Amino acid sequence: MRKMMIAAAQIGGIQKAESREAVVARMIALMDAAHAQGVKFLAYPEMTLTTFFPRFYVEDRAEFDHWFETEMPNAAVQPLFDRARDYGMGFTFGYCELTPEGQHFNTSVIVSPEGEIVLTYRKTHLPGHAEYEPERTHQHLEKRYFLPGDTGFNVARSQDVLMGMAICNDRRWPESWRVMGLQGVELVSIGYNTPSQNNLSKTEGLEKRLYHHELSVCAGAYQNSTYAIAVAKCGMEDGNHMIGGSIIVDPDGFVLARATGEGDELIVAEADFDKCAFGKSTVFNFAAHRRIEHYGLIASQTGVKEPQQ
Amino acid sequence: MRKMMIAAAQIGGIQKAESREAVVARMIALMDAAHAQGVKFLAYPEMTLTTFFPRFYVEDRAEFDHWFETEMPNAAVQPLFDRARDYGMGFTFGYCELTPEGQHFNTSVIVSPEGEIVLTYRKTHLPGHAEYEPERTHQHLEKRYFLPGDTGFNVARSQDVLMGMAICNDRRWPESWRVMGLQGVELVSIGYNTPSQNNLSKTEGLEKRLYHHELSVCAGAYQNSTYAIAVAKCGMEDGNHMIGGSIIVDPDGFVLARATGEGDELIVAEADFDKCAFGKSTVFNFAAHRRIEHYGLIASQTGVKEPQQ
Repeated sequence: MRKMMIAAAQIGGIQKAESREAVVARMIALMDAAHAQGVKFLAYPEMTLTTFFPRFYVEDRAEFDHWFETEMPNAAVQPLFDRARDYGMGFTFGYCELTPEGQHFNTSVIVSPEGEIVLTYRKTHLPGHAEYEPERTHQHLEKRYFLPGDTGFNVARSQDVLMGMAICNDRRWPESWRVMGLQGVELVSIGYNTPSQNNLSKTEGLEKRLYHHELSVCAGAYQNSTYAIAVAKCGMEDGNHMIGGSIIVDPDGFVLARATGEGDELIVAEADFDKCAFGKSTVFNFAAHRRIEHYGLIASQTGVKEPQQ
Repeated sequence: MRKMMIAAAQIGGIQKAESREAVVARMIALMDAAHAQGVKFLAYPEMTLTTFFPRFYVEDRAEFDHWFETEMPNAAVQPLFDRARDYGMGFTFGYCELTPEGQHFNTSVIVSPEGEIVLTYRKTHLPGHAEYEPERTHQHLEKRYFLPGDTGFNVARSQDVLMGMAICNDRRWPESWRVMGLQGVELVSIGYNTPSQNNLSKTEGLEKRLYHHELSVCAGAYQNSTYAIAVAKCGMEDGNHMIGGSIIVDPDGFVLARATGEGDELIVAEADFDKCAFGKSTVFNFAAHRRIEHYGLIASQTGVKEPQQ
């Protein structure tokens, strides 16, 4: 048995004016609480260090460079790395990355209990749009401020577990899960900032959004026989409401723990990573059952082509 | 608006001794009931015409050829085709196909209101095993009696709707859904015969099996913005219990209708196929959001390869 206490550190809204140091202090408080419960791996949300600024339009993108990190770790987050190493705890969190080449990514990392970054992931499926669109209830300008990730969905072994990451909208795409599943993933960490309102549909509010979130995560976990931690930045942030609903899901697709509040909140569950083997060797034994000769369109055709008749 | 009444004709157990004529009479009774409710498209289960014989082992496979149809339609099912044409109703059902070349497939067809077969699908993801395995609570010998389908997941326009099919275990594989989604599918019909017991896990019974079924169908419908009809052969069949739980799901992944019994039962819902367009043009706008450069493994690697470190 490979048992481990794992946790999601849901984070309430981070307002524009909040400093990274203040955020990191909140993160450390949750890490302390996790340690007290014996947690050895802790997941924080997408873009943990800052407000979700893609809801704001700015003509000159460079004006928003201050939301990005140019190195990781850096001085603001070093206390978090230090505390985790003291505890012997692995963790993952998301932030905005500005590379030396001037590229902007929506990024997350997995950090080992020794404080080393063992895996970097750059968000693949950027939702939203690149230009100001007045018909929307609010803007969602991820396609303006980020490049699509260039890492793909890699998996690395850390703490004797095969770990991978996805970010927010990635969780709705079964491709994200499957590419990691094909590498034997046993724990997928997913941070998200999901607005409670679909900005193009007045009838799609909190309840539907939570349903779609949970449906996607549970299906992805089940269909790839992997644990998943989906962890929100939530509540009111700069006047916008986000869904919350952080969950820890087992490799059978069942929710083990669920956040119920809209602020900083820790949820904890015991994982036994050996439980991933049953699904991987039976109903989702990929080698025995997948038929790649019929999957060609998935990796060769981006958009829809309706049949000609 | 493209509104249409659609329905699932759930079928209770069909015992070994039951003739095809008797089964077709039961199918017609459900078709009559559907017509009375204005239904214009009706889905029947996988292997509707016979018992689910892959639960039985026979050394000489040819002894089971009598479960297969060598032409479609044939005399036994012609009354069903005739009744549907009288009603101007499209329909789909599953059966076991033996080709002139001697190939065995688990097959389904979509029939137009004019009585023409407009699409043939042969099951891709065969579950189970090919040899007798005494450690199982029951046998599930689909890999013994069928070849993996050679059609892939095609989509055809019938009744002004883009329709596709999957069969039973296919619904658990997001690849099935996505290949059809990439062809703009608006209605996926899925027949199934799912045992209520996982034959390799004594702790996985009816409740879990229904959850996995519904999770897979709702996720597939949502993630491809398509209606889905998932329809069971259910109840006790030759001493084995199957899960039932037929559902009709909307393109938002919500269940519109659900069967509650374990026998012949009709469930009906109104579809508006124009509702598929919202998801297909926003969150699941494939052309805008998919990143095929990171999906290569899905179509090139069948089984798991863990990362080397």
